[in-house]
Amino acid sequence: MRALAWQGDRLALLDQRLLPLEERWIECTSAAAVTSAIRDLVVRGAPAIGIAAAWGVVLAARAGEPLEAALAMLRAARPTAVNLMWALDRMQTRIAAGADADALALEARAIQDEDLAANRRMGELGAALIAPGSGVLTHCNTGSLATAGFGTALGVIRAGVAAGRITQVHATETRPWQQGARLTMYELVRDRIPARLIADSAAAHLMRTGAVQWVIVGADRIAANGDTANKIGTYQLAIAARHHGVKFMVVAPSSTVDLATPEGAAIEIEERAPEELLSIAGRRTVVESAQAWNPVFDVTPAALIDVLVTERGVVAGPDRAALGALFGQ
Amino acid sequence: MRALAWQGDRLALLDQRLLPLEERWIECTSAAAVTSAIRDLVVRGAPAIGIAAAWGVVLAARAGEPLEAALAMLRAARPTAVNLMWALDRMQTRIAAGADADALALEARAIQDEDLAANRRMGELGAALIAPGSGVLTHCNTGSLATAGFGTALGVIRAGVAAGRITQVHATETRPWQQGARLTMYELVRDRIPARLIADSAAAHLMRTGAVQWVIVGADRIAANGDTANKIGTYQLAIAARHHGVKFMVVAPSSTVDLATPEGAAIEIEERAPEELLSIAGRRTVVESAQAWNPVFDVTPAALIDVLVTERGVVAGPDRAALGALFGQ
Repeated sequence: MRALAWQGDRLALLDQRLLPLEERWIECTSAAAVTSAIRDLVVRGAPAIGIAAAWGVVLAARAGEPLEAALAMLRAARPTAVNLMWALDRMQTRIAAGADADALALEARAIQDEDLAANRRMGELGAALIAPGSGVLTHCNTGSLATAGFGTALGVIRAGVAAGRITQVHATETRPWQQGARLTMYELVRDRIPARLIADSAAAHLMRTGAVQWVIVGADRIAANGDTANKIGTYQLAIAARHHGVKFMVVAPSSTVDLATPEGAAIEIEERAPEELLSIAGRRTVVESAQAWNPVFDVTPAALIDVLVTERGVVAGPDRAALGALFGQ
Repeated sequence: MRALAWQGDRLALLDQRLLPLEERWIECTSAAAVTSAIRDLVVRGAPAIGIAAAWGVVLAARAGEPLEAALAMLRAARPTAVNLMWALDRMQTRIAAGADADALALEARAIQDEDLAANRRMGELGAALIAPGSGVLTHCNTGSLATAGFGTALGVIRAGVAAGRITQVHATETRPWQQGARLTMYELVRDRIPARLIADSAAAHLMRTGAVQWVIVGADRIAANGDTANKIGTYQLAIAARHHGVKFMVVAPSSTVDLATPEGAAIEIEERAPEELLSIAGRRTVVESAQAWNPVFDVTPAALIDVLVTERGVVAGPDRAALGALFGQ
């Protein structure tokens, strides 16, 4: 299972809005098409967005489009996940060094391959922290569909299950886009991992039963002090985990760490259209003229995070000093 | 707006599964029909369930059915809300005293009228606790549709808005049945109360913005020590509220207090069909063979409840002694 595939002259994206009911691939032949696909959630997941954007730059270069404009357009597709900016920075550096379309394709391929390798490494590192026989809870989708493959938090879960350390997984629905219900359960069922779906609001009740030893989530941006932006609801899970003595693990490649952002308060939180809450499956379910507030990320303070797992290593109790050390600063 | 209406020889129930898209009334002419309506969520909300069940007993008496069997059938319709048992106990006491169908109808009418009066009284008592200019968050639906009218938690909100104490309301969606999105927003919009819908998982993020001074919820059963069973997600809200220094208020008529249940752990938590999470609007959204866990209530420990409001009075820091005093025990 994978979210995207470069096909020599176009980028194929699995339309994640339709999963698991339908597996339809969308072929993008321009940077503008990739931008729309990112904005409209055809492709989502912080690492996958970065990789798709890198291929978008390749498409712009192949078409002879002005590359600065393509970079700016792709950068503006979504505001919160920093992997998007990070991948485009890498492409921009290559452009500045005079890279042609073929050289840019090599860079995009490297970004993609490095992400897969990072996920495998994070899987090993994270799984090693989990005691045999543990139950875990995850939020949103952080698997093969959110990355180049294997996954971040879901990669740790895959590795933990394979090692016999994790015996039961719970996944939250993750309103309003249902990434947990539609995508994570899809990946877990295909891998024959023992898993149950719960409503987002059932997490604390589940923790109280003793069925969860670790909450394991991904990240869209990690500030220099360890504050972590991730899917809306992550913060609520972190508070509930701390209340129950359940450990909280964030799994993200180092490209998610943004040392230029000093703390969580400086992270822009994307707010999407109220209609995502006011309608279900295209049908209005809430009374006309009702208003809604639809932030799609929140910030979990570093103090609520027990462990940050990156491909560079594990940080227990992430803070400014520990993250600086991880990046040699 | 009301959930039910006795029509002399039948009980009309507003089918809440269809709201707000459609206002369809279902006419019940037997206790069996009322039982099905309660089980299938045509009527829901702890007080409204109790009232509907009382009228179900009247229908059984009018039809000359064995009343003990009708009582047992109605009692088993849903397990968690104690108002159902309380209302049926009242009817059973009247039956034991030799009441005929007309006398039982007077008792059902009294249960209904007393509930409305209790809601008005709780509205006054609860609203008086709220500082002018406050923002509040509520969960599920506790309004006219959940009671004989006005509402419990939503009654306090109505009274607080009328008194100028509450200036902004947020309502959670309340998965999987969307009672907040479908029913509470419906009531709030009709009353022109400033309100916004949020995803269940956005509550802690909202609290962090400072927009919420009180979380106000209803209850399905309150144990003798103050532990409170309510819609799944209530416990998570209480933990988040305490974390942010937001006050937590439970509003429920005294019929919700069950002194025979010593503590929350003794309350049976209803688990409904996994399909409620695996499908949306009748369409399967999760991969085939996926499993789900669907508890529809949870228990909030008394220690997380700042104030309990009943029509008998306000209890700050509810515990066994305070609840015993409230009931003269």
